[in-house]
Amino acid sequence: MSTKFRGMHILSVDQFQRDDIGVLFAVTAKMEPYAQRRKITRVLEGCVLGNLFFEPSTRSRISFGAAFSRLGGSACDTTGFQFSTMAKGESLDDTSRVVSGYVDVIVMRHPVEGSLKEFAAATNVPVISSGDGPGEHPTQALLDLYTIHKELGRDLDGLDGLKIAMVGDLKYGRTVHSLSKLLCLFKNVQFSFVSPKELSMPAEIVQRCRESGHQVQETQQLYAGISGADIIYVTRVQQERFTSEEEAERFRGSFVINQHVYDKYCKPGAVLMHPLPRDSRAGAQELSTDLNQNKRLAIFRQADNGIPVRMALFALVLGVEELVEQDNRPVRWFVPPTFGADEI
Amino acid sequence: MSTKFRGMHILSVDQFQRDDIGVLFAVTAKMEPYAQRRKITRVLEGCVLGNLFFEPSTRSRISFGAAFSRLGGSACDTTGFQFSTMAKGESLDDTSRVVSGYVDVIVMRHPVEGSLKEFAAATNVPVISSGDGPGEHPTQALLDLYTIHKELGRDLDGLDGLKIAMVGDLKYGRTVHSLSKLLCLFKNVQFSFVSPKELSMPAEIVQRCRESGHQVQETQQLYAGISGADIIYVTRVQQERFTSEEEAERFRGSFVINQHVYDKYCKPGAVLMHPLPRDSRAGAQELSTDLNQNKRLAIFRQADNGIPVRMALFALVLGVEELVEQDNRPVRWFVPPTFGADEI
Amino acid sequence: MSTKFRGMHILSVDQFQRDDIGVLFAVTAKMEPYAQRRKITRVLEGCVLGNLFFEPSTRSRISFGAAFSRLGGSACDTTGFQFSTMAKGESLDDTSRVVSGYVDVIVMRHPVEGSLKEFAAATNVPVISSGDGPGEHPTQALLDLYTIHKELGRDLDGLDGLKIAMVGDLKYGRTVHSLSKLLCLFKNVQFSFVSPKELSMPAEIVQRCRESGHQVQETQQLYAGISGADIIYVTRVQQERFTSEEEAERFRGSFVINQHVYDKYCKPGAVLMHPLPRDSRAGAQELSTDLNQNKRLAIFRQADNGIPVRMALFALVLGVEELVEQDNRPVRWFVPPTFGADEI
Repeated sequence: MSTKFRGMHILSVDQFQRDDIGVLFAVTAKMEPYAQRRKITRVLEGCVLGNLFFEPSTRSRISFGAAFSRLGGSACDTTGFQFSTMAKGESLDDTSRVVSGYVDVIVMRHPVEGSLKEFAAATNVPVISSGDGPGEHPTQALLDLYTIHKELGRDLDGLDGLKIAMVGDLKYGRTVHSLSKLLCLFKNVQFSFVSPKELSMPAEIVQRCRESGHQVQETQQLYAGISGADIIYVTRVQQERFTSEEEAERFRGSFVINQHVYDKYCKPGAVLMHPLPRDSRAGAQELSTDLNQNKRLAIFRQADNGIPVRMALFALVLGVEELVEQDNRPVRWFVPPTFGADEI
Repeated sequence: MSTKFRGMHILSVDQFQRDDIGVLFAVTAKMEPYAQRRKITRVLEGCVLGNLFFEPSTRSRISFGAAFSRLGGSACDTTGFQFSTMAKGESLDDTSRVVSGYVDVIVMRHPVEGSLKEFAAATNVPVISSGDGPGEHPTQALLDLYTIHKELGRDLDGLDGLKIAMVGDLKYGRTVHSLSKLLCLFKNVQFSFVSPKELSMPAEIVQRCRESGHQVQETQQLYAGISGADIIYVTRVQQERFTSEEEAERFRGSFVINQHVYDKYCKPGAVLMHPLPRDSRAGAQELSTDLNQNKRLAIFRQADNGIPVRMALFALVLGVEELVEQDNRPVRWFVPPTFGADEI
Repeated sequence: MSTKFRGMHILSVDQFQRDDIGVLFAVTAKMEPYAQRRKITRVLEGCVLGNLFFEPSTRSRISFGAAFSRLGGSACDTTGFQFSTMAKGESLDDTSRVVSGYVDVIVMRHPVEGSLKEFAAATNVPVISSGDGPGEHPTQALLDLYTIHKELGRDLDGLDGLKIAMVGDLKYGRTVHSLSKLLCLFKNVQFSFVSPKELSMPAEIVQRCRESGHQVQETQQLYAGISGADIIYVTRVQQERFTSEEEAERFRGSFVINQHVYDKYCKPGAVLMHPLPRDSRAGAQELSTDLNQNKRLAIFRQADNGIPVRMALFALVLGVEELVEQDNRPVRWFVPPTFGADEI
């Protein structure tokens, strides 16, 4: 297997070629029994993760920390909004070099775009981005792509010709940007970008999709936009994004996907995705809770996939992906048949 | 041994029958050599705890985390006051389901009563309550009962006929509510509820004790209230609970237990308990520090008991309680003969 | 080997005699292969650290946590500024005794001088100081001394006759106080204390150095102060320390060490140290970034040394220093040849 990932920083989806995705997903598939708690492995016993979150993101932090623990390693977390030494005038370079002397791999979220690249440039210890401000969140895009491939039951080549609708806040939602870029690695993708006009997909992403030979449709009409799609990827919209209350009101009325909308406007078997959190307050409900019994609602399986994808990334950058098969044993504690209470 | 606990949520003392307490305490006793650092076990190696505290409680968080570590597992902690995704409109159901995909067992403290029940209903991963607002704190009540049974050197049947005085803030102190409910499982308990009238035991607890066939005495007189008791369970009173400064003043003068009060008014050998923290500032001193050399002051042994009780709960809900005896070895690091500096 | 350290609190450099330093550094040297990730050991598997930081210090907290993890133990961290129970009137004695029932060794940073001594007096579980207010930070001084000895390639006896310049804020910088005290254990040290007059070394430290038979020079002239020194130990100056803007301005212009200053005024081979963080903002630059390619800039190796020194302290107070050689194996994950990106 490729040693290309060994010692690499994971900062952008642009680092990945189609072959790399193939390598990553093959390792991810091997990680599933551990993520699903059928087996345990200790290949990273003694290895230390610096899990550095300078912005609150409990979900991502626990996902990375749990993934690392499932490989046998130990995590040191930082959850403060400010790295105390940075407040004293320390450069990102110095912080990076000092932390590199303590830990073996670093996960970082930072509020300022570009800071991860600067941080990573100062160290040889692998740095994995968990998002920097409005910039990328590459591991989310990778787990999204893994989910698409798994939910549709297609191999990677089967993703050529994919029809995907992206719905909601396409302007500020960094996950849809990164996922669109990743999908550009495939052929003849049909993108349908569905959003209020204030929140439409940035021109450079649209252009990139088109220049890569894909079809792009942009629309403000939800029902037309989602019809025919294999994948409907919905994102949360923050009300403060709108310029007027009227516009927000119009949006609230027309961008809700519920079981009725699904039955009436979606292609049978269309897969519903969401990077989460979804807004379940009245007046939001971009993906209504009445879809919870719909077997094509993939949002929780999508979140679950964060564990094997992140385990695979840790294993690859630390070069232990081959060792997992030699060093594992069955889980002995009680594992429920499904994680969610109302799953079948 | 019973597999009743396997996969169970631990949310309320009302889930426990007398037989269940017997099972729990038998496992707790087996955990003592690990809690006292004479042996180590790794039965939960590879298992991940989500230790989610949405309210500050360093003590409980470390107690749960240390208990889980002593079984060999890894903890992912959250200490923020707000789960960041909840602020974005995520329902407790969604949060619960997502975290369940990451970890194998969840401990949660939440400021809102009822939220733990809602959270637990959405997951098949065992959830153990560490308190929700004014609601229950079941593991504290269980460790309190374990302490009573151990300090008095009686088996569970020996707790029939127990005489217990509860002193202090009986209105807001959730530990005295939960402990009273647990004691209702026994026979002929004599409860003495001692508090200022503003802070008396809620009527529904008193009624429950009486309807379960126990004797209840309510008094504002400390000395009369504690005389004859086998166990004196004291709680901290927050001054802001009083309606007038005079009332607070009166309270401060009359609800202090010190060595003099102990010698003069308590039954010889009466055991002094407190859920901690005790208020050691001048003017508070509900349990005076001059009792620190009194061998019947059980407050630190009571806190210590949190470790084996929580280890036992983890082992039972995860179904590994039988494995501990097969998988252990002696501690090799230095362990002091006593933990406290001035203990004998 | 000496068992003197077993069960000891590490609160002050004054606890160390010259022989103790020898013992500590011998164990530190044995820890280097683990700190440098060539080998792993699990001698402290099952052991729990309470990593209690009541003041923000991400760097020290991660350094202690990583050091403990590299010995195989598990850390429970507290990062809040206030121990929640302390706010409720709990005495340090009670907090200390309760935490001692949960964990096997405690690292603590506290904002109030003297609080660590009080905390440690109440427990038999070893307590290691990570600083209390303006008081001591003994592990920093120990790692500084280890760095001096290693960078100069001298054994401990070789430190007799050392010439060291300390530069910057000598009044508030607790690391220079502790290091000066430690160096008093050696013979004929030549101290050069270089600082603006507002920030000069406290008289009691100067006196102690002189009474121990060492030479002390105090100066406000940077270039004169550093000439001839084997070690130049620089500290960060906070601008708010100055009484006037003029004074601060004068300081900014005259206390910068850069490559030009190094070449012109330093003894060839002089080693540059700094406890970090260094202030890299324009107008600060007490150690200019243009020194980053200077092989005698030891600041990152100095930070790295925190890991083996802290591992050695944990191993000694927990009495496992002899077990490490029996219980280790090679690292199997990818380790970069150097941690910093631009190191040779």
